[in-house]
Amino acid sequence: MKKRISLLGATGSIGIQTLDIIKDHPEEFQLVAFSVGKNMEETRKILKQFPVEAISVLHEEDARLLHKEFPKVQVSFGDEGLVQIAAHTNADILVNAVLGSVGLNPTLEAIKKGITIAIANKETLVTAGHLVMQAAKVHNVPILPVDSEHSALFQALNGEKKSDVSKLVITASGGSFRDRTREQLKHVTVKEALNHPNWSMGSKITIDSATMMNKGLEVIEAHVLFDISYDDIEVLLHRESIIHSMIEFQDTSVIAQLGTPDMRVPIQYALSYPNRLHRPHAKRLNLVEIGKLHFEEMNYTRYHALKLAIDAGKIGGTMTTVLNAANEAAVALFLQEKISFLEIDEFIERAMFKHVKISSPDLETILHVDAETRKTVQNMLK
Amino acid sequence: MKKRISLLGATGSIGIQTLDIIKDHPEEFQLVAFSVGKNMEETRKILKQFPVEAISVLHEEDARLLHKEFPKVQVSFGDEGLVQIAAHTNADILVNAVLGSVGLNPTLEAIKKGITIAIANKETLVTAGHLVMQAAKVHNVPILPVDSEHSALFQALNGEKKSDVSKLVITASGGSFRDRTREQLKHVTVKEALNHPNWSMGSKITIDSATMMNKGLEVIEAHVLFDISYDDIEVLLHRESIIHSMIEFQDTSVIAQLGTPDMRVPIQYALSYPNRLHRPHAKRLNLVEIGKLHFEEMNYTRYHALKLAIDAGKIGGTMTTVLNAANEAAVALFLQEKISFLEIDEFIERAMFKHVKISSPDLETILHVDAETRKTVQNMLK
Repeated sequence: MKKRISLLGATGSIGIQTLDIIKDHPEEFQLVAFSVGKNMEETRKILKQFPVEAISVLHEEDARLLHKEFPKVQVSFGDEGLVQIAAHTNADILVNAVLGSVGLNPTLEAIKKGITIAIANKETLVTAGHLVMQAAKVHNVPILPVDSEHSALFQALNGEKKSDVSKLVITASGGSFRDRTREQLKHVTVKEALNHPNWSMGSKITIDSATMMNKGLEVIEAHVLFDISYDDIEVLLHRESIIHSMIEFQDTSVIAQLGTPDMRVPIQYALSYPNRLHRPHAKRLNLVEIGKLHFEEMNYTRYHALKLAIDAGKIGGTMTTVLNAANEAAVALFLQEKISFLEIDEFIERAMFKHVKISSPDLETILHVDAETRKTVQNMLK
Repeated sequence: MKKRISLLGATGSIGIQTLDIIKDHPEEFQLVAFSVGKNMEETRKILKQFPVEAISVLHEEDARLLHKEFPKVQVSFGDEGLVQIAAHTNADILVNAVLGSVGLNPTLEAIKKGITIAIANKETLVTAGHLVMQAAKVHNVPILPVDSEHSALFQALNGEKKSDVSKLVITASGGSFRDRTREQLKHVTVKEALNHPNWSMGSKITIDSATMMNKGLEVIEAHVLFDISYDDIEVLLHRESIIHSMIEFQDTSVIAQLGTPDMRVPIQYALSYPNRLHRPHAKRLNLVEIGKLHFEEMNYTRYHALKLAIDAGKIGGTMTTVLNAANEAAVALFLQEKISFLEIDEFIERAMFKHVKISSPDLETILHVDAETRKTVQNMLK
């Protein structure tokens, strides 16, 4: 039986690679529904390659046009459309590869339908991880990580008991500005920041990687996914990005997952889990060619965004919602060249400082805090 | 319920560390029987600490003395004594930590009694791996590796399917003479050869580590334990001995086990499996402190013994028996200062060259070939 896949964010970096994997394994996987934003050219290409049942786009006018061109496909749009794709009743697994907290509600709706979640949308777990994990528990739905670090942790946990874990070690390449001091980051341009050495990603994630907020979000995501205390999560600077993360167990044994920096491996693992499948055309890891792996202590002064994220995680409640929303808003302002690179951290810190944490927030509270935080950040411009 | 442990080779390096672990976990483990060689002082100490039911020593006169001193303990001696300890009816698990192919028969007898085998005695698997694995299958007995490399592979396989494995990667520190050319090895003394940089081991294993025959035996052992073709087993030079070995799966994902060079971790894992236990006083892995991990291609000309071992493995049948017996005999001659360091390889190669392989040998054939090979090597001295 083929696994039926619905995909949120088909034209993004993770989305495109997910489609590659489905193409590589036509006997294993079938795309049944997907969502896109505004890229109609790419959407038409996908629709011609994959005979899906339903799609969703951002704008109503695009939906109307597509409906005429592809009359057999059910077309919807906007936030409601995202939910329809996510909770497509025919799907076995939802790949959530949208960016930002917009992925939260569709994820919760898919969980209610009993659909397995392959989560690449880390903002969903950062902004409302407790709601997602609670719902997953109630509906007995697996939440499978897609991120290379969390996939590494998930793989390292294979066949192990969570009670035997003593520490998670999340590796960090150090981002594109690894070798610059904080002082040298003052005048970083958008163009410079969008150039990442190891991974090819979307622009929001690339900026998150440059500020190291990405790693901060990953720490929170790991805390949520694996239910491990922040005190037992370590971030290790490892410039080669070959060890994707590791787990230390109570007997001091460490299990690590390694590989070339190819996102298709963790994406495929989430789709094929609990099986593994051949990965065609993939480069095999060659440690002789690489020669050396380096490890350095994380500098939390240099990487202030990472510190902010861990602080937010430890504070808990709505503070991670604020962290995430402020980050999304501040990165957008940086990409619009309205603020400088270092102001990203500054704006986030100010938003966190202004916020009074609400414990165990429900969805409404989270969405409210998220929206308020974005406004707060916008207002900092004045 | 405590696991009842019988231990062959209690005063050797692995044996002593096994006793440490039993002492560390009195609620989990109980020593019920053990064997030693000639070290009566150590034997008396162990007997005073552990109220065992049975022991065995090498010589009859020692057995007689001990029987008087410890009248409640059943004392036996010689080859027959080893079998009695190994197949001690009351034991749940046998730790086979003797050196050399003398461990074979006791292992087979323990398997017949349904006793789980924790195998540190790699010569047993090298000389007659197919007999051990066949017997284990028939009697449904787990064979758990104790060697750090095989324990690493075993741990990396946790929760995985063997059919998903594409390659085993066994790491090698390069031995104590890593940085010497073959030419520079000509005049190595016994004293020099007994000094290993990373691990503290017995003298036979230390010489095997210096010649890299140890790694060759490990390749054969891995082939036997995990039923993987020699073409899919790679040896990787990794001077720090931090990654203990790794497995590449068909999706190119690699799972590795890492740790400080402390044999107590893999020994304890074999005893506690499928659980993990706290490892008191153990040094936790600190990759920041280590800083760099190095990887180099294996040079099979430089490490001729490794090449001989892989050749013997590929030839199969009695050829690995010859390899192992010739190595044991040649190392003994080197330790007696009767041959030079490089003559160890030479004597093994000559023994292999003289031998005509017998396929699927039975125990009798193996014991015969083993004895003949030792004579052949002795005769090379003339």
